[in-house]
Amino acid sequence: MKLHGYFRSSAAFRVRIALNLKGIDYEQASYHLRNNEQFSAAYLRLSASPLVPALEDGAEIVSQSLAIIEFLDETHPTPPLLPSTPSARARVRSLAQMIACDIHPIDNLRVLRYLAKPLGHDEKTIETWFNHWIKLGFDAIEQRLRREGATGRFCHGDTPGLADCCLVPQVVNAKRHASFDFRPYPTIMRIFEACRAVPAIERAFPEKQPDAEA
Amino acid sequence: MKLHGYFRSSAAFRVRIALNLKGIDYEQASYHLRNNEQFSAAYLRLSASPLVPALEDGAEIVSQSLAIIEFLDETHPTPPLLPSTPSARARVRSLAQMIACDIHPIDNLRVLRYLAKPLGHDEKTIETWFNHWIKLGFDAIEQRLRREGATGRFCHGDTPGLADCCLVPQVVNAKRHASFDFRPYPTIMRIFEACRAVPAIERAFPEKQPDAEA
Repeated sequence: MKLHGYFRSSAAFRVRIALNLKGIDYEQASYHLRNNEQFSAAYLRLSASPLVPALEDGAEIVSQSLAIIEFLDETHPTPPLLPSTPSARARVRSLAQMIACDIHPIDNLRVLRYLAKPLGHDEKTIETWFNHWIKLGFDAIEQRLRREGATGRFCHGDTPGLADCCLVPQVVNAKRHASFDFRPYPTIMRIFEACRAVPAIERAFPEKQPDAEA
Repeated sequence: MKLHGYFRSSAAFRVRIALNLKGIDYEQASYHLRNNEQFSAAYLRLSASPLVPALEDGAEIVSQSLAIIEFLDETHPTPPLLPSTPSARARVRSLAQMIACDIHPIDNLRVLRYLAKPLGHDEKTIETWFNHWIKLGFDAIEQRLRREGATGRFCHGDTPGLADCCLVPQVVNAKRHASFDFRPYPTIMRIFEACRAVPAIERAFPEKQPDAEA
């Protein structure tokens, strides 16, 4: 299996966590996003969209991180990254999508670039934007994790799953600017630390990847 | 079952299509988004996040449109909205997420509001932004729908499914501004018309909802 991604991509990071939790061997192909390598003809032939990641599994190409993780969960069911009942599965997917749909796309590199040019905003304004959407998302996620009895050591129960695959990269992403205030999110941060203590998750961190830069 | 939504919400529209395709009876609770009714204490108690939709199924509350549709597909399997093999399921989820993650969140009302205030952009600049992200997403989706053999009368084969639940509202959304150029997207538009010819989908359109306004 080959993961087409980038060490700093949050979406690729989600998939690395899933692959590692499942103990799947994979190689990585790296596309330097700031150098626009995701727009190369070779990558576009593969994925149609200049966004990483894409998973290559034999002749199969799957794009979109959540679709990839569900694909892995269906093709490599052990350990499961989704619980077994429809209602618990809905909870986990919903938490994952609160990150993958409500936070991350608005703070993605291409959007921040558009704010800089053509819109002409300075770094400070873009940083405020960046933190704003994380805060709105984290406010809602923190509240759910606190009030819902299904929360355990991880987002859902005591084993890491799809929601944790999304939460960890989003916390790392929020740390990009020292100005993000994590104090209102003790539950998110407790789960983040629990995740970081899992070697399979820790090995998926950006700085551990072969294409990592300082 | 009760769908908490709004006639103009694309994400609620996706769920209405799924409910109608499955022939599930449901009532609707409407939150006027421009009047900020999604911030009401009652709605936040229900969903934790001031975003619609949320599905109430007895004591169960599910938020996030894609999580809701997968929940419906698991609890009401006929007709299925996802195909049966992992690889086909991944294709459909990936197409759905190319809309639900890569286009819609960046063009959502709250983001457009932020561009207007505090960022101070005028309507023309916001319209250009709006169209820009749809164009990028549609470019990639059109290409996939054309080159992938699994495309049929609908996004995947000859029955409507999860990807169509996302495609139809996104096309309706793109029509909001007369300036969006649909000519590069004959496959998307062919599928949109095929969907509109399905009475269950047509009944989910915004203007058919009890809370519709002119």
